[in-house]
Amino acid sequence: MEEQQAEAKDATDKQVLKNDPDQDAPSGHPPPLDESDIDFLVPGRVEELRGSRPGDARVRIVHPSHPEFRRVKSGVVEATEAAYTPHSRLGQAVSLLKRILIGVPIATSRAEKERLTKFKALAVLSSDAISSVAYATEAILINLVAGGSQHLGLTLPISLVIIGLLIIVATSYRQTIPAYPNGGGSYIVAKENLGTLAGLVAAAALLIDYVLNVAVSISAGVQNLASLFGALAPYVVPIDIALVALMMILNLRGVRESGTIFALPTYFFIISALLLIIIGLFKAFVLHQQPVIGEYAQVAAIEPLSVFLILRSFATGCSAMTGVEAISNGVPAFQKPETRNASITLTWMAVILGTLFLGITLLATTYHVEASVTGNPTVIAQIAKLVFTGPLVFMFPVFQLATLGILTLSAETSYADFPRLASLLARDSFIPHFFGFRGDRLAFSVGIVFLSVLASLLLLVFQGNTNALINLFAVGVFMSFTLSQSGMVRHWWRLRATDKGWRRSMIINGTGAVTTLLVALVISSTKFLAGAWIVVLLIPLLVLLFSGIHRHYQRVERERTSDISIYPEHIHHRFIVPIEGLDRAAIQSLAYARSLSPHVTAVHVAVDTDEANRVRAAWNEWQEHLKEAEETHLLIIESPYRSLRPPLLAYIDTVHELHPDDTLTVILPEFVVGHWWEYFLHNQMAFRLKAALLFRPGIVVTDVPQHLDDRPRQ
Amino acid sequence: MEEQQAEAKDATDKQVLKNDPDQDAPSGHPPPLDESDIDFLVPGRVEELRGSRPGDARVRIVHPSHPEFRRVKSGVVEATEAAYTPHSRLGQAVSLLKRILIGVPIATSRAEKERLTKFKALAVLSSDAISSVAYATEAILINLVAGGSQHLGLTLPISLVIIGLLIIVATSYRQTIPAYPNGGGSYIVAKENLGTLAGLVAAAALLIDYVLNVAVSISAGVQNLASLFGALAPYVVPIDIALVALMMILNLRGVRESGTIFALPTYFFIISALLLIIIGLFKAFVLHQQPVIGEYAQVAAIEPLSVFLILRSFATGCSAMTGVEAISNGVPAFQKPETRNASITLTWMAVILGTLFLGITLLATTYHVEASVTGNPTVIAQIAKLVFTGPLVFMFPVFQLATLGILTLSAETSYADFPRLASLLARDSFIPHFFGFRGDRLAFSVGIVFLSVLASLLLLVFQGNTNALINLFAVGVFMSFTLSQSGMVRHWWRLRATDKGWRRSMIINGTGAVTTLLVALVISSTKFLAGAWIVVLLIPLLVLLFSGIHRHYQRVERERTSDISIYPEHIHHRFIVPIEGLDRAAIQSLAYARSLSPHVTAVHVAVDTDEANRVRAAWNEWQEHLKEAEETHLLIIESPYRSLRPPLLAYIDTVHELHPDDTLTVILPEFVVGHWWEYFLHNQMAFRLKAALLFRPGIVVTDVPQHLDDRPRQ
Repeated sequence: MEEQQAEAKDATDKQVLKNDPDQDAPSGHPPPLDESDIDFLVPGRVEELRGSRPGDARVRIVHPSHPEFRRVKSGVVEATEAAYTPHSRLGQAVSLLKRILIGVPIATSRAEKERLTKFKALAVLSSDAISSVAYATEAILINLVAGGSQHLGLTLPISLVIIGLLIIVATSYRQTIPAYPNGGGSYIVAKENLGTLAGLVAAAALLIDYVLNVAVSISAGVQNLASLFGALAPYVVPIDIALVALMMILNLRGVRESGTIFALPTYFFIISALLLIIIGLFKAFVLHQQPVIGEYAQVAAIEPLSVFLILRSFATGCSAMTGVEAISNGVPAFQKPETRNASITLTWMAVILGTLFLGITLLATTYHVEASVTGNPTVIAQIAKLVFTGPLVFMFPVFQLATLGILTLSAETSYADFPRLASLLARDSFIPHFFGFRGDRLAFSVGIVFLSVLASLLLLVFQGNTNALINLFAVGVFMSFTLSQSGMVRHWWRLRATDKGWRRSMIINGTGAVTTLLVALVISSTKFLAGAWIVVLLIPLLVLLFSGIHRHYQRVERERTSDISIYPEHIHHRFIVPIEGLDRAAIQSLAYARSLSPHVTAVHVAVDTDEANRVRAAWNEWQEHLKEAEETHLLIIESPYRSLRPPLLAYIDTVHELHPDDTLTVILPEFVVGHWWEYFLHNQMAFRLKAALLFRPGIVVTDVPQHLDDRPRQ
Repeated sequence: MEEQQAEAKDATDKQVLKNDPDQDAPSGHPPPLDESDIDFLVPGRVEELRGSRPGDARVRIVHPSHPEFRRVKSGVVEATEAAYTPHSRLGQAVSLLKRILIGVPIATSRAEKERLTKFKALAVLSSDAISSVAYATEAILINLVAGGSQHLGLTLPISLVIIGLLIIVATSYRQTIPAYPNGGGSYIVAKENLGTLAGLVAAAALLIDYVLNVAVSISAGVQNLASLFGALAPYVVPIDIALVALMMILNLRGVRESGTIFALPTYFFIISALLLIIIGLFKAFVLHQQPVIGEYAQVAAIEPLSVFLILRSFATGCSAMTGVEAISNGVPAFQKPETRNASITLTWMAVILGTLFLGITLLATTYHVEASVTGNPTVIAQIAKLVFTGPLVFMFPVFQLATLGILTLSAETSYADFPRLASLLARDSFIPHFFGFRGDRLAFSVGIVFLSVLASLLLLVFQGNTNALINLFAVGVFMSFTLSQSGMVRHWWRLRATDKGWRRSMIINGTGAVTTLLVALVISSTKFLAGAWIVVLLIPLLVLLFSGIHRHYQRVERERTSDISIYPEHIHHRFIVPIEGLDRAAIQSLAYARSLSPHVTAVHVAVDTDEANRVRAAWNEWQEHLKEAEETHLLIIESPYRSLRPPLLAYIDTVHELHPDDTLTVILPEFVVGHWWEYFLHNQMAFRLKAALLFRPGIVVTDVPQHLDDRPRQ
């Protein structure tokens, strides 16, 4: 045993010497920490460290249970998984729960980028856009019915205009894809081409719309579920929020598995919807099934049919266009050749979206379906019920579930884009930096949680009513479309010398910009009172917030990096030790202070004279410990109003103002007890004093822990 | 100007020298702080202090705006009011609000003990007992009616038994007054004579009953108000709680003014009630007013009349006895001769209480009044309505208001006794010490607030229903009566050698003890299921809690005062400075650490290799500032799972275990920003690290504040 130790010690010395500067371990696989490697944790001259620690044996006993670090090279270690294991039982429980919900943490080095095939990409990136057909027609109908049911036929021409708009926007975005192969989100395109302000407006608009998209998609999906199972109707809001929570957890697990998860429901919905349209139109136009195809239930007009009403219906229907930009944002996620694959997918998406939207609108007008004010049953549920009859009746619940599926997944577009956009804004210091941190599973956890909380709040406030939520929607989308397209116009103008197709591209994007601007104006004016005002108001407020945060970070950065010449030898220390009496805590704190500086003042705040005399007497007795040269003194402050904190603070302030060039350190004993409830038994003077001192510039606070319990650390 | 300064400086030196040891100022009126007195705030050798501070002029400029301290004698100062003035705007607002509600703080030296005349003492100390007549009769009726309305006449004999009991208890307590002239609360009497456990049981029982008394008195008072103004009935609970809040504020202001405030409503009620009884009985027995005196409305029995039912009615009626002990607790508050005055007042109280209780019960049976299940209208309101008719009708609202008045004030007995008992328990370390602190107005603030909160909760839970609350009541009172009287028996037995009247006294107290024990058993058994079980369960739980707290404080005291020999020269320091990079904060923290010890390790946790290399490069450049002898090194920890805190904590733990004999200090830069919201913008690593380090024994944490803002301190 003795021998072994001696042997190990020799090895240690050799090893440490061998490790001295620039003898790096081979990269990639750092060697595991062995006994001889201990001293790299406290880098420095080996002799000195050895000297300061007489009992080497202890090190050897302690060490093997702490495999928390792996040596990389001189002065650099890598934390192993053990370093992340919480010690406390509570911490371990939390950690276990996190692992169950979110999964085992992934090391940064294991980060991989999943590339999507066109087939999967269409599912992942278009679920938002395509799912809008589930509510867009209904949105038009519910507005139009205000003019009386006789005008509901106008739904079809309005939808055709929207499809025209879709073609323009899709064509515009096809221009963005090759220009920004690294992902041309509106924020980046607008910021690069139109300046920071435009970028921030686009970002604010998008962030708002991402939140709204989650709320609208989930609420629409659940309303379809409630159309299927009427008994669920009273539980719409809790189901909404449970689904948001599920989305959150799935996304915190990371997007790794999501490609496959997504493909199924998206294609399932596309096929079901196509089936619905084909069968429905066949029944109507070929079979002329009179009993099935009803007439509009008579609804009296509550306002005359006006251009305004038509525009409002159009504006609401434009919610069908949300999510069209997702593909051009996500170009880097495509398999190579990225831009070509993305362009093809975008075309496909537009075709599918247009077809489904047109088909469902046709069915709605043919079957004379009206929107229910409560949103239950939904328009597409009514259509499906009318179409899927007889032997096809089993298709009704299937179609409803498919709708729920794609609507829930369409929220995923927001879950992909919101955290990414937030991380870009965080990188550029427009929102708190923690939005840019990657969590255990490499996802931007903060953004995901934030989005979920906001969407849940919206669902709560609007009681899961899609038609109310939709009034806030689409304003932001079209504002960001406009800014993005305008940015592209500027982009082509810049490239006019080098890109020979610049004129054509500029015209396409210009058309897109003008059209989307017009639509944005129509939406914000016609739906202003119904809720769009919230968004119109929120966007400038967010931009102001972003700018404020940016200024703050810039100032901090300036101050952080500003040159400072401070040398240890210029620091003149002065220690203040508030004491309750000459108890153990006081003696420990005083010893700590005296070992660092000769200028130590113990301060006792006395509530009455008896107490003051008692402490003074104890001090006089203890004083003989002090050395001749020490400037350690006791000051007693009598507090006629009995509180302890204010006189102490006033004293610290006064000393600080009397000696502004000194570095003032206040030493506070921190009572640490075994049980949390025991904290109630000690007036947390130290804690409150600390809170107050925190805001006093230039005063250093030192906590000397006073452990009252010899319980083992949990 | 220059001259003035020089002159002042000379004066300073002289003054300070003059002040050196044992030249004390005349006591009583400490001289105000003058310019020359500054240096006593940092006691020590004057030369040294002068030397460390080259620019004396600054001191003079700073000083006049800080008259926070007054010199008492060498090494002792007294805080002036200025020291208590908060600096922050929020603090000032809170302070202003406190002054408006509670009043200007009172200095300890201005504490005065108001002595009460018998006339005032009867009002202050008997309002609880006397007010019980407002609900005691009703409590009997509501129980008895279960046996059918034909047996309601039993109310009278039951009341007579209670009055007999009152005579026994009052006689018993008259023995306590001369034996405990400093206040013989049940806690003290039981603890001194029967041991700590008995004392704690009595204390627990009393604390519970004080809370119940507040709830019962307030709810009974408000129910009488609602009997007067029917429209208030739905707002009973909010009015209850508002009254509790009012009582709380009045009591936080201190009891100084309370004697006079109390006399009026108490005597007003006594006179009104006597008037009611005289007129009522006159009408009934002299005028034989048939139309007024009704018959019992027929109520069918829901259980047979049993001994149990009669005992239960008796038990509930015993709530009339609550508060009888108040006078013997409050002996020191009487004018001299205290014991004689207290005895006389106790007799008066018993006579008044007995008379009123008997009178009201007589009226209730004569007028055949029944209790309403909802408690509204109350029995005494019904009586008053029947008695005060014709020209006397104006007396009905007057009587109701008098009832509300005395019931509200009767809660005051609890407000006087609960905080006092709590402070005694705190002094003996059975409950947290802060119950013993005197607030701004010298009142035991914590006890007052605690009592108010508990009573409010009770009122909320029981929805202000007196008859439900009363089922929990009186158990505790009679348990404490029993313990107190048994203690007195023991007391006389002890004094049998010296006190010649010991035998007679012991018999009186023995009778009291046996009787109250029987009553306590009757109450707890008959009302067990109705609510008394809560109290019966709560008392042992509280006693356990008290013992647990006591053990904790004892352990802490042992540890605090245990001898410790720690000398500064034995402390070997080791400083760890976590840095984010070589920014200003890091350089400041490193300078601070290096000025105190040569053993400084800077630790940087790197999320990726790029970052690690960047920091290492910056360090190598900066390193040239280091002196040859310094052991200041950088360790980089690569964190593959990206989080910063766990590897840092693991590192600190490892170093602590490798060098267990060293004192480890972790220096954390604390970013201090100008606005609270700016905290969201900095990940509060320091804060969370501190929270984690707090629970690690032996690690000192130093916050070096990094002020990012040059805003003036608020």
